[in-house]
Amino acid sequence: MSKLKPQTRDKLKTVSTATICTALYKRGLRNQMIQDVVPLDAKKPTMVGEAFTLRYIPAREDLNPITVFNDRGHPQRKGIEDCPPGAVFVIDSRRDPRAASAGNILVTRLQVRGVAGIVTDGGFRDAAEIARLDMPSFHVRPSAPTNLTRHQAIDVNVPIGCGDAPVFPGDVIVGDSDGVVVIPAHLADEIADEAVEMTTFEDFVAEKVFEGRSILGLYPPTDENYRTDFALWRKAKGR
Amino acid sequence: MSKLKPQTRDKLKTVSTATICTALYKRGLRNQMIQDVVPLDAKKPTMVGEAFTLRYIPAREDLNPITVFNDRGHPQRKGIEDCPPGAVFVIDSRRDPRAASAGNILVTRLQVRGVAGIVTDGGFRDAAEIARLDMPSFHVRPSAPTNLTRHQAIDVNVPIGCGDAPVFPGDVIVGDSDGVVVIPAHLADEIADEAVEMTTFEDFVAEKVFEGRSILGLYPPTDENYRTDFALWRKAKGR
Amino acid sequence: MSKLKPQTRDKLKTVSTATICTALYKRGLRNQMIQDVVPLDAKKPTMVGEAFTLRYIPAREDLNPITVFNDRGHPQRKGIEDCPPGAVFVIDSRRDPRAASAGNILVTRLQVRGVAGIVTDGGFRDAAEIARLDMPSFHVRPSAPTNLTRHQAIDVNVPIGCGDAPVFPGDVIVGDSDGVVVIPAHLADEIADEAVEMTTFEDFVAEKVFEGRSILGLYPPTDENYRTDFALWRKAKGR
Amino acid sequence: MSKLKPQTRDKLKTVSTATICTALYKRGLRNQMIQDVVPLDAKKPTMVGEAFTLRYIPAREDLNPITVFNDRGHPQRKGIEDCPPGAVFVIDSRRDPRAASAGNILVTRLQVRGVAGIVTDGGFRDAAEIARLDMPSFHVRPSAPTNLTRHQAIDVNVPIGCGDAPVFPGDVIVGDSDGVVVIPAHLADEIADEAVEMTTFEDFVAEKVFEGRSILGLYPPTDENYRTDFALWRKAKGR
Amino acid sequence: MSKLKPQTRDKLKTVSTATICTALYKRGLRNQMIQDVVPLDAKKPTMVGEAFTLRYIPAREDLNPITVFNDRGHPQRKGIEDCPPGAVFVIDSRRDPRAASAGNILVTRLQVRGVAGIVTDGGFRDAAEIARLDMPSFHVRPSAPTNLTRHQAIDVNVPIGCGDAPVFPGDVIVGDSDGVVVIPAHLADEIADEAVEMTTFEDFVAEKVFEGRSILGLYPPTDENYRTDFALWRKAKGR
Amino acid sequence: MSKLKPQTRDKLKTVSTATICTALYKRGLRNQMIQDVVPLDAKKPTMVGEAFTLRYIPAREDLNPITVFNDRGHPQRKGIEDCPPGAVFVIDSRRDPRAASAGNILVTRLQVRGVAGIVTDGGFRDAAEIARLDMPSFHVRPSAPTNLTRHQAIDVNVPIGCGDAPVFPGDVIVGDSDGVVVIPAHLADEIADEAVEMTTFEDFVAEKVFEGRSILGLYPPTDENYRTDFALWRKAKGR
Repeated sequence: MSKLKPQTRDKLKTVSTATICTALYKRGLRNQMIQDVVPLDAKKPTMVGEAFTLRYIPAREDLNPITVFNDRGHPQRKGIEDCPPGAVFVIDSRRDPRAASAGNILVTRLQVRGVAGIVTDGGFRDAAEIARLDMPSFHVRPSAPTNLTRHQAIDVNVPIGCGDAPVFPGDVIVGDSDGVVVIPAHLADEIADEAVEMTTFEDFVAEKVFEGRSILGLYPPTDENYRTDFALWRKAKGR
Repeated sequence: MSKLKPQTRDKLKTVSTATICTALYKRGLRNQMIQDVVPLDAKKPTMVGEAFTLRYIPAREDLNPITVFNDRGHPQRKGIEDCPPGAVFVIDSRRDPRAASAGNILVTRLQVRGVAGIVTDGGFRDAAEIARLDMPSFHVRPSAPTNLTRHQAIDVNVPIGCGDAPVFPGDVIVGDSDGVVVIPAHLADEIADEAVEMTTFEDFVAEKVFEGRSILGLYPPTDENYRTDFALWRKAKGR
Repeated sequence: MSKLKPQTRDKLKTVSTATICTALYKRGLRNQMIQDVVPLDAKKPTMVGEAFTLRYIPAREDLNPITVFNDRGHPQRKGIEDCPPGAVFVIDSRRDPRAASAGNILVTRLQVRGVAGIVTDGGFRDAAEIARLDMPSFHVRPSAPTNLTRHQAIDVNVPIGCGDAPVFPGDVIVGDSDGVVVIPAHLADEIADEAVEMTTFEDFVAEKVFEGRSILGLYPPTDENYRTDFALWRKAKGR
Repeated sequence: MSKLKPQTRDKLKTVSTATICTALYKRGLRNQMIQDVVPLDAKKPTMVGEAFTLRYIPAREDLNPITVFNDRGHPQRKGIEDCPPGAVFVIDSRRDPRAASAGNILVTRLQVRGVAGIVTDGGFRDAAEIARLDMPSFHVRPSAPTNLTRHQAIDVNVPIGCGDAPVFPGDVIVGDSDGVVVIPAHLADEIADEAVEMTTFEDFVAEKVFEGRSILGLYPPTDENYRTDFALWRKAKGR
Repeated sequence: MSKLKPQTRDKLKTVSTATICTALYKRGLRNQMIQDVVPLDAKKPTMVGEAFTLRYIPAREDLNPITVFNDRGHPQRKGIEDCPPGAVFVIDSRRDPRAASAGNILVTRLQVRGVAGIVTDGGFRDAAEIARLDMPSFHVRPSAPTNLTRHQAIDVNVPIGCGDAPVFPGDVIVGDSDGVVVIPAHLADEIADEAVEMTTFEDFVAEKVFEGRSILGLYPPTDENYRTDFALWRKAKGR
Repeated sequence: MSKLKPQTRDKLKTVSTATICTALYKRGLRNQMIQDVVPLDAKKPTMVGEAFTLRYIPAREDLNPITVFNDRGHPQRKGIEDCPPGAVFVIDSRRDPRAASAGNILVTRLQVRGVAGIVTDGGFRDAAEIARLDMPSFHVRPSAPTNLTRHQAIDVNVPIGCGDAPVFPGDVIVGDSDGVVVIPAHLADEIADEAVEMTTFEDFVAEKVFEGRSILGLYPPTDENYRTDFALWRKAKGR
């Protein structure tokens, strides 16, 4: 059962991973960015959803013939079918993109099932086709070899590392063109609220900077006038 | 003399490096993907051709003044002029993109000579211009410094390593948006046949998945019904 | 006060970083390319300007609360406001893109102030928005975490390393789709002149290669006929 | 309950990880060496025991105050107390030695409890003291920061990756001055037998090579005479 | 003028970098360990002293002929002569050990001048001779090429990064067989006091563990009895 | 036939790789150090000999069953038997120590045959035994897996890269506790002479520094008095 409130999801869709990182930083959380991953299509809308995880370990040759997928209980296949709609499927590939974490067919299945997105700290095969799906996806780089070459799926929905960030099932995952950030579940609502506020102010600042104002006194608004200006601007913009 | 049958070349143009990797994996070949290389233009058609190789070693300063290219027998220049039409020019740059493996003029010459493509596990200079050529090209990242800065061309058409994969002259090289794979020469025909078959099945599966079917029982087709469906689908599609 | 002559700036806008690297190589300078950085938007015109630098060291947690930016004298903020119009802002991020070197608002401020471009050997946050600005920008990869997470701004306009290249304030920085090169200040005029000459010749060569000529004897022009042809071609083209 | 036969343990104590790797290679197992780890004291006897594992994920700051160890059920502490005598404690530190995997007190506790050894693909703190214990230990390099800085213990005795090798609980771990190898549990007996045989032959070969014989025909013994010589040598040596 | 109290220096000589890291961790400082450096001689006593720094940038060939050392004001030479007795000479080599940071003669000069030790996040040449000096030294690995090959000394006694840790002039540097840690100057006294206390307790714990006690309840001492035992033990030992 | 004069060999045995690197640097050669390799036994005398090379490429599984060594013409085995006495056996392992470059039996055979030493930019198996041989050996780190796991021997005595340095057959290889340097064959005599001279001066300087002299004016000897002192010192020492 999802614990992510629809309003929180909606708010997070309107803010950037950069803003969220700053809000987390203020709370002492410095390692929540999944390092080194990029969107397959940087033009997709922001991805938001609760983490559903898959853990890979290095593949042992005798345990990974191509026939393992005949087993309907294989953790990779099972994970794909069990991931809840609205969740983000997050794969711990030990930062190893030398073999694929998944390919087009599995990612398409996730999309059809209503999953909100997919992230791996490895790589996807059929990357061009995955990029053309509606569902957002993030990886390190394309990687054609079958996952069995390097990765053995071992666990579903346990705490994992992904791109040197900790990911617990249920954490709220947000991804945009800068990459993917992990919000601890219990902070999602307050981070969403704060990030929306910060975004409003940053939009005001960006407008002033484009108008030619110095950042000194404005960003952050140590100059009292800017606080007044901002209050008026909010009113005018209805934000 | 090319040993690559025209039909095999044509078949390989219709399949993906991902599918080829799986076919190689079934034969115990796990390291045939050239790691870390990407197409300069991901929209080009699939590259297919037999490997013609160039081997670089680290450059020694006294042996690599800019005047070395006055020698018509310089291995890099000679390699460019000797690479057969229809082949793929594969460069062992020791995975070092700190200096260029080649630039626009040499790559253009290869295209004019009818070469099928070029791959380096280093980088190209003039990368934007090379990307605009018709001939497909693959590298790690752009790199402006002249190759003499780091690389000394030493051998033409010997076995090499490229992106941690073994490449023997005459191996069949296939490149698409996921990267570049090396098919041992003696396996090219059977891999091409098998990959075409696999692609047909994967197209069927993708269609079913888009229609909302679970992957369980379908991919792989452990459910007997799917085998019947697939037989009918092939008939209907004439594949 | 800028020492970069307007004509030199104009010439450098018409040549490539690859050509400049070769001209530097002829003078024994092999490490002037800033390694691993790419343009955020590869379609921007060539960036040219004198280096104005910012040096980061690793962040110490107690010195980097979010409130440090309340200080108008903070080196990062000060650097942004002090960088001269026409200069290129170059950041030494110790090749660490795990946190941002800067974000959209600061980069926009540089653009509004007439700065010619920005380079970091780390990463920018809000990378998609920075890419859409008119001012060219170069980094390793996007990075959402606030710079305080990893980087503490410590010095403005001192000699730095950037992407394993030495950068002295006032060096002439040129960036295009292949990346960014550093021309020592005292060589800017002669490199610009030589690079323009080399570009003219390379354009001639490219034309000949497209017409089907071998590179042997042509590139470099050891065949006397080509020198004559080139002289005629220049005349015809008025170059 | 240990499934490792005492005779198998004894045999494995007399052979090298190099010989074991070759025996595994003959069975198609190429990735059983834990990469990059070294013994803290290269003079210790060979370590042999069944794997008991600990899994770390990246630490989240709010979950890892120094007070977590007040919890007697903390997985790291619990793992140390639960690891069976005769086993090898294997830690998945995600190849990250920037913070310690464990320190002197915990490793001493393992020794006192009769554990056969400890391996991490990270680093130990108090490395000099750990090296002086009787129990063999293996890591990447010393690392003083407390494990909480980077690592959160999350699971005990699950399958893990360690140094890019798969490790299942109960696999037989062997460590010597070359490093640490993982023998799948079901192969331990046959690998032990084969490795003892190989070692006998290699000792014979080494003796012949020191006497001045060429390796051709001897290693491997394609020369029939050497097979006879070896049979006589075994008889004489009683091996 | 040194601000490091003699008693603080003496206390720090009796504690480990591991213990200091834990004390820093309790204060929210997680990145004070200089990563990847090892002692040239692991048997030396603990190094303690205030940081005196040297900053290198990448070498530019035309600025670094062998004759630069004819200049008595060259920052590397000057730094060696200016470093105060009792200080630790810390070099920012940008984590690049491909050329030496210094060699035997300069390090000997530091020893003769009464300097307390030397650290680089690069490498030393003449490493075996430096290891035999009395003064402790720390680096990544030996490196024979002259520093001019890669490094240009540019600044003396400015804040630097070393092994991904921030180092400010005057910070207190402590090095032992686990490596080197940086204590912010203002914390030196309290960290020294706390580390001495922690060491006393850890010695007690180690003794108990060798006697066969479980770590549960003992480390940390959540079992009240252990606190009593420890009080008695301290009394008995006079610590 | 060796072209290395006995006197040159003898001189090189008395100087350090650090001194040789400086002599090469003066001639514009900056990349002759084999990066990242260490002696297996740092106490061995200096290794000197002409390079005899072996080139590995990445192993292809079907070409590397354990039975390949039944072929007496296998390049690795042949290289071992063909390497001339007095030469240094240098292996291009593509800087990959994940599998062994060679093991104890082959290295012993080289020693028995009178070879002067062995270097790989990968790793050796049976490293402890190899360290105990009389012949010096250098590698990156121990590595137990058979070379067939990753490396296929493909060529003997061709130009190679080793540790990012160019190595041509016949180049003079010198190794000591700092690592291994490559002297181009045609420079061996003059480098040997110059290095002996430099060593004499450095010994003088070291003595003066131990006596308490500043390095300013002494190293280099810009102070005229030191030149006189040195002349007297040489006379007194008979050097």
